[in-house]
Amino acid sequence: MKAVVYKGPFEVAVENVDDPRVEAPTDAVVRITSSCICGSDLHMYEGRTGAEPGIVFGHENQGVVEEVGPGVVRVKPGDRVNLPFNIGCGFCFNCERGYTGFCQTVNPGFAGGAYGYVSMGPYKGGQAERLRVPFADFNCLELPQGTEHEADFAMLSDIFPTGYHGAEMAGVRPGDTVAVFGAGPVGIMAAYSSLLRGASVVYSVDRVPERLAKAEEIGCVPIDFSKADPAGQIKDLRGGDGVMKGIDAVGYQAVGHGGGSGDTTEQPNAVLEGLIEVLNPTGRIGIPGLYVPADPGGVDEGAKEGRIALSFGRFFEKGLALGTGQCNVKQYNRYLRDLIVAGRARPSLVVSHEIGLDEAPAAYEKFDKRVDGYTKVVLHPAA
Amino acid sequence: MKAVVYKGPFEVAVENVDDPRVEAPTDAVVRITSSCICGSDLHMYEGRTGAEPGIVFGHENQGVVEEVGPGVVRVKPGDRVNLPFNIGCGFCFNCERGYTGFCQTVNPGFAGGAYGYVSMGPYKGGQAERLRVPFADFNCLELPQGTEHEADFAMLSDIFPTGYHGAEMAGVRPGDTVAVFGAGPVGIMAAYSSLLRGASVVYSVDRVPERLAKAEEIGCVPIDFSKADPAGQIKDLRGGDGVMKGIDAVGYQAVGHGGGSGDTTEQPNAVLEGLIEVLNPTGRIGIPGLYVPADPGGVDEGAKEGRIALSFGRFFEKGLALGTGQCNVKQYNRYLRDLIVAGRARPSLVVSHEIGLDEAPAAYEKFDKRVDGYTKVVLHPAA
Amino acid sequence: MKAVVYKGPFEVAVENVDDPRVEAPTDAVVRITSSCICGSDLHMYEGRTGAEPGIVFGHENQGVVEEVGPGVVRVKPGDRVNLPFNIGCGFCFNCERGYTGFCQTVNPGFAGGAYGYVSMGPYKGGQAERLRVPFADFNCLELPQGTEHEADFAMLSDIFPTGYHGAEMAGVRPGDTVAVFGAGPVGIMAAYSSLLRGASVVYSVDRVPERLAKAEEIGCVPIDFSKADPAGQIKDLRGGDGVMKGIDAVGYQAVGHGGGSGDTTEQPNAVLEGLIEVLNPTGRIGIPGLYVPADPGGVDEGAKEGRIALSFGRFFEKGLALGTGQCNVKQYNRYLRDLIVAGRARPSLVVSHEIGLDEAPAAYEKFDKRVDGYTKVVLHPAA
Amino acid sequence: MKAVVYKGPFEVAVENVDDPRVEAPTDAVVRITSSCICGSDLHMYEGRTGAEPGIVFGHENQGVVEEVGPGVVRVKPGDRVNLPFNIGCGFCFNCERGYTGFCQTVNPGFAGGAYGYVSMGPYKGGQAERLRVPFADFNCLELPQGTEHEADFAMLSDIFPTGYHGAEMAGVRPGDTVAVFGAGPVGIMAAYSSLLRGASVVYSVDRVPERLAKAEEIGCVPIDFSKADPAGQIKDLRGGDGVMKGIDAVGYQAVGHGGGSGDTTEQPNAVLEGLIEVLNPTGRIGIPGLYVPADPGGVDEGAKEGRIALSFGRFFEKGLALGTGQCNVKQYNRYLRDLIVAGRARPSLVVSHEIGLDEAPAAYEKFDKRVDGYTKVVLHPAA
Repeated sequence: MKAVVYKGPFEVAVENVDDPRVEAPTDAVVRITSSCICGSDLHMYEGRTGAEPGIVFGHENQGVVEEVGPGVVRVKPGDRVNLPFNIGCGFCFNCERGYTGFCQTVNPGFAGGAYGYVSMGPYKGGQAERLRVPFADFNCLELPQGTEHEADFAMLSDIFPTGYHGAEMAGVRPGDTVAVFGAGPVGIMAAYSSLLRGASVVYSVDRVPERLAKAEEIGCVPIDFSKADPAGQIKDLRGGDGVMKGIDAVGYQAVGHGGGSGDTTEQPNAVLEGLIEVLNPTGRIGIPGLYVPADPGGVDEGAKEGRIALSFGRFFEKGLALGTGQCNVKQYNRYLRDLIVAGRARPSLVVSHEIGLDEAPAAYEKFDKRVDGYTKVVLHPAA
Repeated sequence: MKAVVYKGPFEVAVENVDDPRVEAPTDAVVRITSSCICGSDLHMYEGRTGAEPGIVFGHENQGVVEEVGPGVVRVKPGDRVNLPFNIGCGFCFNCERGYTGFCQTVNPGFAGGAYGYVSMGPYKGGQAERLRVPFADFNCLELPQGTEHEADFAMLSDIFPTGYHGAEMAGVRPGDTVAVFGAGPVGIMAAYSSLLRGASVVYSVDRVPERLAKAEEIGCVPIDFSKADPAGQIKDLRGGDGVMKGIDAVGYQAVGHGGGSGDTTEQPNAVLEGLIEVLNPTGRIGIPGLYVPADPGGVDEGAKEGRIALSFGRFFEKGLALGTGQCNVKQYNRYLRDLIVAGRARPSLVVSHEIGLDEAPAAYEKFDKRVDGYTKVVLHPAA
Repeated sequence: MKAVVYKGPFEVAVENVDDPRVEAPTDAVVRITSSCICGSDLHMYEGRTGAEPGIVFGHENQGVVEEVGPGVVRVKPGDRVNLPFNIGCGFCFNCERGYTGFCQTVNPGFAGGAYGYVSMGPYKGGQAERLRVPFADFNCLELPQGTEHEADFAMLSDIFPTGYHGAEMAGVRPGDTVAVFGAGPVGIMAAYSSLLRGASVVYSVDRVPERLAKAEEIGCVPIDFSKADPAGQIKDLRGGDGVMKGIDAVGYQAVGHGGGSGDTTEQPNAVLEGLIEVLNPTGRIGIPGLYVPADPGGVDEGAKEGRIALSFGRFFEKGLALGTGQCNVKQYNRYLRDLIVAGRARPSLVVSHEIGLDEAPAAYEKFDKRVDGYTKVVLHPAA
Repeated sequence: MKAVVYKGPFEVAVENVDDPRVEAPTDAVVRITSSCICGSDLHMYEGRTGAEPGIVFGHENQGVVEEVGPGVVRVKPGDRVNLPFNIGCGFCFNCERGYTGFCQTVNPGFAGGAYGYVSMGPYKGGQAERLRVPFADFNCLELPQGTEHEADFAMLSDIFPTGYHGAEMAGVRPGDTVAVFGAGPVGIMAAYSSLLRGASVVYSVDRVPERLAKAEEIGCVPIDFSKADPAGQIKDLRGGDGVMKGIDAVGYQAVGHGGGSGDTTEQPNAVLEGLIEVLNPTGRIGIPGLYVPADPGGVDEGAKEGRIALSFGRFFEKGLALGTGQCNVKQYNRYLRDLIVAGRARPSLVVSHEIGLDEAPAAYEKFDKRVDGYTKVVLHPAA
């Protein structure tokens, strides 16, 4: 079958690879109808990880079940399913408490596994015609038969629940005030989720005009941090008051606001410091944005080793709390699916391109360069 | 009346000061039967804060109501009451959600007020014969009449609920595994509270033999961090496994373990790094230990400005969460009182000395020097 | 001043009564700009309670502070405020845990007090030019100055938070499926709140065409129970599946569906039985609809004594849970106010009439007879 | 192999039956070391259910894994495991939210399955030498190797978590006051769990002297309801105050207190009415005690159809809440196991007899007649 294969820094190719097959009794093989390119795929693409050439990319996968092993009892060939990016077993201590992003079974020696990602276990990615799915009964989310909402449902593998996870960790509740740093796909989904949860006001902080426009379109107040300190801008709009909840949808590659000078160099603690500044005492912060234990390209020694300097005295004085980590997709995906089915959520609003598998190499290049509006690409291998 | 007055670094005196009186209709005046010396009083005593001479110390207060204003309807003269160290109004946004440690009314311009403490508002302390209590109906916790459990109840003003707050923020639940860093009075109360909440195993990390002995006495596993990396010691005891919950009862004046070399110099992030290391993925950390926004005596530039460098990449990879801040005493004090009344909690186990008001200056000196076993001193002004 | 005074069954009059004044230091007097007639006022109006002639009605009050006592520190004359129907002290065991509907102070011998209601304490109602407000700092919710959103804000005293309370007790979460029995003002607010909280589908069960039309207008699926068993209708629409959450916004005066025969006689357990039938196993039920301990007009001996026969075996087999009771308005009113201010909630959609105080007697009569579309009346005494 | 087989009302026999074997790839076969007789086995034994002769009893099972299917990856032959009485799949909507007592997979057409119980699916019981365990990776709880704590661990299948579930549904928290109705094995475990969770006072209500003595032994206040109204007795002890939390560990076969006359005839609502009476406003009730949808032997028409008449007006006026249903054992069993391992819980305190499989028929007879102190019997088939 054809698949998107990593060849080395800044190079992927669509090549023939072995067909996946049922290896364990609880496996399924899924024919992929949609597989998205994720911003985190670019980390590998850019050669900033330990990913070896040969890896098949793709952790945001959706399709139709073709075959199941003899230990699979719920999922049947012909079922249309969405697959969480993280793979869980369903029976380890973490999975059974709902922390499926930290499965202790699927990636021995580490808490958590995923498709097509360096260090996340031996699982091929789904930017391909077919995909092997372990523990299929646990990992397949049933979708309504047919092709409706294909792009909306495709967001259920990762970015919609990941954004929602930010809102959940921050404890966003009806009537709440929220500041979301980052208006890329995950940031938009975090803001969108905050509004779905009933927030009264959501501030969306970014510097890219198209992103800020998208944020405004979904009902947020856009804040351009390249113009001035974003916390200050928000407080000015609120008569000096801050907000109760914050979401960091940026992570370790944050850039500073440079006092509005236009000088926005990388500053790993920029978003966290902005959140500490803009939150009111007793507030909460949800951090779905990625922080890594080692970043060879970090701006200084601390950053290289994943250390971040925080105004922790300030944080404590305000009595803040924060939650972090990969989204446990299965905690949310059924509920978010039901919102899509009911017509009350339309997460595909972040999708910029829907293309065939063969166009993947060009899409990676453009997405990496952020040209031609490449924001969120959905590949349709089986289209 | 007589009161403990701050005269300047390393000097307090028992002096005559003006009697407190009912100033607002919702005030009460309480005759003090017990007022404790807190470790945080030493910050002022040592001159490491902006406290001006003349301040009356004492935020852990208990006594008998002598007089109430015309707007007080619940509390009556003769009532025996314990007073939370933080003063709340009961009707601001924070108080009404239970965040009484962040009252927006009692200390204008800041979230939170307290008795006898620098920057915490214009309230005199209770290391004195009498005390004015604002919003008396909200701030007085009723105690059974008489003198029983006097020292136990005195722990309800601060250290018992503060330790409990650590366990609450960490989400300690029955069957849980917990590491508590620090075995001073608050650390012991955090460990004790974890056991009261049903933890299966609690590790208590310190280096002072008497403290470790106390921890063992209440049922903890003592870990002497001066011997070796405490996270490593705990994991060794658990066959490589970490723990699910952690409590930092130390704060910014933490010292490193020096690889067990005996060299334990100040290292503000030592406890937080130890917790990140010892926690299992999906764990939670409660931080009642104080971190300050400015510490002129800090070990480096960051510390002076209250910045702490954390292994945040590691923290994120494990999907950890943390909560911080001053304890909201009123969230817990009724329940903890009832445990004392029922004979199921005896927090006075940390009390080392019960003395008269006149002995306060000597007690401050010895407590500050940690000599003669001065751990937790209860003054009995009206005894 | 003028006020709506109860004269006896089916008779109220607008009469002159004594002006309210500051009686306790913590009191305020509020000039009433809006006071609503509530369905529960009709219980008194119809003579089905022990209300004595002379009582001034009105527990849904809003206005401008005219005067405050010397113990009031937050609220000032000129402030525009909304008043929760239940009166709290702010410092009893129930109030401090947020259960302000069960205040132990304001109505001695009973948990809970209110304005202008039989057995709810000695408090005059606000269908009048002015109102005395006890514990004013605790009970006044600040509104933006001016007159904007007057009718929306007026819903904050009772029906908006009461409907929301139903959704809260049922645990309605994003993506949830909900059945709300009753589409009167509270039922509509419960359904509206469920949607604000992110429910995917809300079924609204009633038999009055105008109510069902209103439910549909706000985005619910209307279910006419007079046509057939409502649980059956909902399951048919869902391919046999039930719903996860249910809200009873009807209470003890429920009527049965009569098998769709049109015979809908009073049957106190009709709604509860319908909910038990329509809920899926592990579901939850929130019950803001009133059940009373004694109902002299009850349909049988059990009903007269407030007993209801429930299919409790069925309830247990499904593992259901339920919550009941008067809404603790202060738990929600700030958040709901902020949704109104932000333009994200418009609860006045249930208001049918806005009139002057003098028109109250006619309005009571028509509302009681359910003629001329009288659904929710807002009186504007000071207009 | 040998197994306890139901022959008809009041008759069980130890007979040879077919050996269990791995039928599905995810199955295991476990050699049983302990299997308890449960009070609910007596319902079948007494012929009060639809159980057909031939059924093998036993849903409280523990043993050593002998064989696993090819789809089992965690559990291995030789592992010592405890088995929750309810069987879950791990991947249905209910299991993945933790409601493993309501699995939608294992017992088609019904939410929930169990071993050796009528209507709970086609699963043989474990009062036998061996047992087939479906979805073995999900259903096996690992125990420390060896034989230590055998009887304590055996309580993890049902009664310890079931009692704990009562405390969880009631929301018992540190410092709480609790009334537990019923001091049989589940009631004792509910009271014991309440104390483990930090309750300050637990009242244990029963009429059997041995049970009341056991309750007192674990630290409860015993209340003999045959002497007088139990709610009144508790309030008298508390100076008129009630309690905040209640647990019904009795269920539908409750008997009334007969005003202390000694006349305690069956009255299905007796315990629920007692709880409504003794709870303070805003309290919560957890109901692990069984209520059934149909009881042919019920005392009246309502009881036969599983209807219970409740003082629902009173319940509402107090703003009470309640939760019901079979325990989801997997929510708690790991944590409770860890308390046993740590020596902090010893649930075997309720065990009255440990015997061999051959003695089962005699034990059933004596347990049913409540003679010779038969309270909780553990069979050791492989001993």
